Amino acid sequence: MTPYVGIVGGGQLGRMLGLAAAPLGISIGVIDPSPEAGAQVVADHTLAPFDDLDALRELAGRSDVVTFEFENVSAAALEAIASKATVAPPIRALEVSQDRLSEKQLFATLGIPTAPYRTVDSLSELSAAVDDLGGPAILKTRRFGYDGKGQARVQPGGDLAHSWAAVGEASSVLEAVVEFDRELSIIAVRSGSGEFATYPLAENVHRTGILRTSSAPATADATVTALATEYATSILDELDYVGVLALELFDVGGELIANEFAPRVHNSGHWTTDAAPTSQFENHIRAVLGQPLGATAPVEECVMFNLIGGAPSTEELLAIPGAHVHLYDKAPRAGRKIGHVTVTRTADADFSVAVEAVRALVDAAAV
Amino acid sequence: MTPYVGIVGGGQLGRMLGLAAAPLGISIGVIDPSPEAGAQVVADHTLAPFDDLDALRELAGRSDVVTFEFENVSAAALEAIASKATVAPPIRALEVSQDRLSEKQLFATLGIPTAPYRTVDSLSELSAAVDDLGGPAILKTRRFGYDGKGQARVQPGGDLAHSWAAVGEASSVLEAVVEFDRELSIIAVRSGSGEFATYPLAENVHRTGILRTSSAPATADATVTALATEYATSILDELDYVGVLALELFDVGGELIANEFAPRVHNSGHWTTDAAPTSQFENHIRAVLGQPLGATAPVEECVMFNLIGGAPSTEELLAIPGAHVHLYDKAPRAGRKIGHVTVTRTADADFSVAVEAVRALVDAAAV
Repeated sequence: MTPYVGIVGGGQLGRMLGLAAAPLGISIGVIDPSPEAGAQVVADHTLAPFDDLDALRELAGRSDVVTFEFENVSAAALEAIASKATVAPPIRALEVSQDRLSEKQLFATLGIPTAPYRTVDSLSELSAAVDDLGGPAILKTRRFGYDGKGQARVQPGGDLAHSWAAVGEASSVLEAVVEFDRELSIIAVRSGSGEFATYPLAENVHRTGILRTSSAPATADATVTALATEYATSILDELDYVGVLALELFDVGGELIANEFAPRVHNSGHWTTDAAPTSQFENHIRAVLGQPLGATAPVEECVMFNLIGGAPSTEELLAIPGAHVHLYDKAPRAGRKIGHVTVTRTADADFSVAVEAVRALVDAAAV
Repeated sequence: MTPYVGIVGGGQLGRMLGLAAAPLGISIGVIDPSPEAGAQVVADHTLAPFDDLDALRELAGRSDVVTFEFENVSAAALEAIASKATVAPPIRALEVSQDRLSEKQLFATLGIPTAPYRTVDSLSELSAAVDDLGGPAILKTRRFGYDGKGQARVQPGGDLAHSWAAVGEASSVLEAVVEFDRELSIIAVRSGSGEFATYPLAENVHRTGILRTSSAPATADATVTALATEYATSILDELDYVGVLALELFDVGGELIANEFAPRVHNSGHWTTDAAPTSQFENHIRAVLGQPLGATAPVEECVMFNLIGGAPSTEELLAIPGAHVHLYDKAPRAGRKIGHVTVTRTADADFSVAVEAVRALVDAAAV
């Protein structure tokens, strides 16, 4: 029988999971309310809301395992289908990642440092928290934030009522701003048998809350790499995790502070498709189906650029040596990720020249 | 507008072309009479005979370019749609490749050596040709042969009537058997603007007329590589070719003798998906759409094994470090290619041990 993987969400991550699954003879079905869902090029597409229980049950009925491509999936809906199909990653991992407070508590339990923070459930608590942390901070809703949404910058003496309104007066945490040297992330994968693998660290640059570039492998000494690996391992083991997980970290003078984790394949791991022996997408599929994991080394040097709101002409990009173009079949819209481009080293061209050529095109097209 | 490529044939080559096209935002439509056509996982599928003119015209109407995944396509049918869409590679290249005599005449025109041969259109001509060549030879139908079909081995003094019957008394050529050291192939690609690229040579092993393994890059001195590149270039230029072409060669003590060419992506280039910066599939799509070609170097060391008639369990294969599995969604049948496996070097494992482990599994499963 052909293995069948159901995915809640049929956007670009579902699409790339499907493209990685097809060579292995694995079929994919996605649930997505958008008729334009990018995954449908390579997946059966059920047009339904993500939490439509009938659609989820039907998908589970034909799936060996159900996974998800984003973390704002209803945990309750997944609980409701857990009797019909295995769900991976585990629902608990999803729940922890959905609540910034639970996430920070998990980090604390595992001895993983985080920025100082306070919970905030009212304007007066916000005021007290700002005084307490004593410096610039970021107010973040506990739930349903992504790509910088549901966040507000807060200064001592600033307009706290405005900030509290900006996050919709939702249950939040106030995090002290960390003066980090750089942002790193590590993509890790664990199989049902406890087999574990990590990719080399990526160094990430965000702008306006959206990931712009990931460069891998990041320059990092053995201590930093070992620390990141240890943190990721401890999270996967604690959650009895199956699948790919991304852990975002701040590097503060060689000390690592956890920002957040994502219980799924992750934008900062897109480089693995073009520069690692097994992509994060293939390894996620292999993990959730209980198959052996694929090699994560050696990797090539790679820089990934997100296409935000607009894309240069494919022809111009492809003329740059070592450029690999990945489009998601999404209509351009300001601030929307519609594709990404990676650059790898070629035999005949200068790598850094190619990287800068792609950067110039991507920046000029971004909206 | 999304570029659209029509493909005559929706088997594994169409499937892999489609998987390479999707990341570039390119849509694919295939014509194939099989409801099981493997390309449909990633392509619109028109269920029709390859030479169904209505279906071809309809496909051409929605395509920027029409290409083909096998060489036994009707040239006349393609001529009939050439007014509605560009056809690439050029129909002349298809026609030449469809007739062993035309192919050998092309090689002769370009100064590319071939094995001695004679044309055979009757039993008496066969008898004269056998005497003329004076040694073991292979009788091959001029048209519609593939994977060793339409061929018969002929010995001086052998049962010539039997051989003549074996090729269906069809117009044929008798080729002297070449005592070669090894079989090589080169995958070359040319764009509409005359841009040209080649991949490193692969060394191929056939058994019972079917390709079993390709190893790349083949060990070859600069002279052999230059000669193969020169031969491929001259064919592409002579045919004003657009797309990927594979040239099969015999290495006889460092001299290269042309066997045949295929005007399409080729089994001996499947390794490029896992071990080259741009796969033959992506480069074919880029070439036929008039886009710049992708880098073909540097490549990793890679051995490709065809899965013939049967496949080991995916789980067993994936447990071998550096093994990449490619299944075609084809029902197993003796002698039928149903997938392939490549092996690339990983950081932690011995490459040759991994290669031999895959070989053992593949050989045991072959039927």
